Amino acid sequence: MSVADLTRNAVDVLPKGELEKKLELGRPLRVKLGIDVTAPHIHLGNGIPLQRMRGFQDEGHTGVLIVGDYTARIGDPSGASAERPIIAPEEIDRMAARFFESAYTILIPERTEVRFNGEWLAKVDFAEVLRLTRTVTIARILERDDFANRFAAQQAISVSELLYPLMQAYDSVAVEADVELGGTDQLYNLLTGRDVMEAYGLEPQVVLTTPLIDSWDGTKMSGSKGNYIALVEDPNEQFGKTMRLPDELLETYYRLVMELELPEGDPMAAKLALARFIVERAHGPEAATKAADHFTRVVREGEAPADVPEAPLPPDDPAHLPALLVEHLGVGSTSEARRLISQGAVKINGEAVTEIDVPRVRLEGALVQAGKRRFMRFPAA
Amino acid sequence: MSVADLTRNAVDVLPKGELEKKLELGRPLRVKLGIDVTAPHIHLGNGIPLQRMRGFQDEGHTGVLIVGDYTARIGDPSGASAERPIIAPEEIDRMAARFFESAYTILIPERTEVRFNGEWLAKVDFAEVLRLTRTVTIARILERDDFANRFAAQQAISVSELLYPLMQAYDSVAVEADVELGGTDQLYNLLTGRDVMEAYGLEPQVVLTTPLIDSWDGTKMSGSKGNYIALVEDPNEQFGKTMRLPDELLETYYRLVMELELPEGDPMAAKLALARFIVERAHGPEAATKAADHFTRVVREGEAPADVPEAPLPPDDPAHLPALLVEHLGVGSTSEARRLISQGAVKINGEAVTEIDVPRVRLEGALVQAGKRRFMRFPAA
Repeated sequence: MSVADLTRNAVDVLPKGELEKKLELGRPLRVKLGIDVTAPHIHLGNGIPLQRMRGFQDEGHTGVLIVGDYTARIGDPSGASAERPIIAPEEIDRMAARFFESAYTILIPERTEVRFNGEWLAKVDFAEVLRLTRTVTIARILERDDFANRFAAQQAISVSELLYPLMQAYDSVAVEADVELGGTDQLYNLLTGRDVMEAYGLEPQVVLTTPLIDSWDGTKMSGSKGNYIALVEDPNEQFGKTMRLPDELLETYYRLVMELELPEGDPMAAKLALARFIVERAHGPEAATKAADHFTRVVREGEAPADVPEAPLPPDDPAHLPALLVEHLGVGSTSEARRLISQGAVKINGEAVTEIDVPRVRLEGALVQAGKRRFMRFPAA
Repeated sequence: MSVADLTRNAVDVLPKGELEKKLELGRPLRVKLGIDVTAPHIHLGNGIPLQRMRGFQDEGHTGVLIVGDYTARIGDPSGASAERPIIAPEEIDRMAARFFESAYTILIPERTEVRFNGEWLAKVDFAEVLRLTRTVTIARILERDDFANRFAAQQAISVSELLYPLMQAYDSVAVEADVELGGTDQLYNLLTGRDVMEAYGLEPQVVLTTPLIDSWDGTKMSGSKGNYIALVEDPNEQFGKTMRLPDELLETYYRLVMELELPEGDPMAAKLALARFIVERAHGPEAATKAADHFTRVVREGEAPADVPEAPLPPDDPAHLPALLVEHLGVGSTSEARRLISQGAVKINGEAVTEIDVPRVRLEGALVQAGKRRFMRFPAA
């Protein structure tokens, strides 16, 4: 695999020519990525640097995932910030396990080293913090866009905030990273890692940033905003959300997620192939086929899915349709059911019903539908 | 003693009215002063906040001296800065002892608590540093003139430099200071102590700054510049240096050092009284009298001091004067002695000598002088 393949989709690979030198060392490189296991959802955007790591793993290099458990375990010791609650060790382990379930849909577990940074940060004393903080200037850290803007706007930046990028840099020292991966928003943090490694007498890491990805709402995909497609979630959800992407984003998703060129022709076909890819990566080919079928029948063609629940035929004749909808289809109330009926949203065997009381014979073996997604079936008499 | 007495010569006492409230607590206040035991000389300028502490001690309060041994012991762990060598614990103890010898010419030892900040700083881990640094904003620390100027001039300020004022502030937390004393150059550090104490749930300290003092060369007195009068050094040195002060500084020295008004009349008499005060504080009244006598006779009137060393009469007659000057008066060589003689700088009983060979009878019981300061006496025959 060429350097061009290893750095596919990268935004920055710095400094120029250094990755080539690292590759010439002829040993497995240590390719670091700091992960946030406390993120509520691990999504396609998080997958992009993982895909890069996988590219290195395919060439025999080692992926090093850093779990930032130290800050999670300490939280905000002053208790002043609700954003940094203290997280119990077992909870961190549980969150990490969930993260790895997602990450290993992309990575090769045997070539992945997982490290918790409490391993080294818990041993750092004040003297070591001084040593660490002596390596970097305030101006260098304030170069970061987010800090620079806040500083210029005279917003409060606490001194502690300067320490977080330095902790991340210290992680690079501890694991002796050859390469550090991260989103473009991490560029300055990764470069700080270089400064600090050099100050600690190590060969500085190569910095490789990957793009963030936009979601269907035109903003960056984010686990906390609800506009995400998770790396691992219900196949039908993954499929349905992918199909919601606007056509203009297809080229980006092909390039970043599938690492393919967008084929010419029908965008719908391309989108279906993307959705299958995403489900297949998470759940395998069978799940992808089922999700595609489900989408085609239920969402697209409005047909019943294959696994519609059955309910026994009602004892009354005629049967009271609103009561049946409440009992078997999860409609909230009989008055809501009446409204759905009056809107033509309730169908028996695909045909809208307008009556409230239905002769039982019409229900025998019938598929009953409320809205687009709720289905049930009655047995034949 | 009134608040006005306790705050005599203070530049800032902040916040207004808070010292009065502290005094109303009716218990001994803890009056903190951070000291630099690594300073090469402890001088009158260093004495000014000590005098303030003594004022509090006279009212039954406790002086708390903080020795910053922690940073001294760790030095600059990167070894990059020659300014921060690692200092061995025994050496710190030796330096501290020397400091206290000076400080106790002013303080009451029984009301002085000495604390080494390694006691608490050695226990601080990264989590505690984060807690500490979360209490203060970058902007707040950069308000300090020295930082503000360097930042504006785009000079490098390392992140570690922001931590030093926070360490000092943490000292205030550790000793639960009620008042912190310091020179005017310490104002922001002392105020930072207030912020941090408050964040740690303590009643913030009152901040009391004292003026720096100018020396005879018109610049701030400094132990590293050679323009200092040490709190403890040779009495004749103290006396002579004090007499070197220009008359314009007398009012300042009376006010800051003696805490008196400059008396009207002869400035020379006032200066002699100041010099006596400084020697007496360090060495007692007898030493002050001797230093005054020495100054009057030797320096001012060119007379021999009282304690001239004796040397035995030479065996030869006539005696070789240059050899005697080398042997007993510390003249560097016989040729230098010849030069001094030719310049009329060698006197026997106050009269210049021009001969190289001197009849022994002239030396019996005689006072021999080379230049203004070197004297010896021969016994009577």
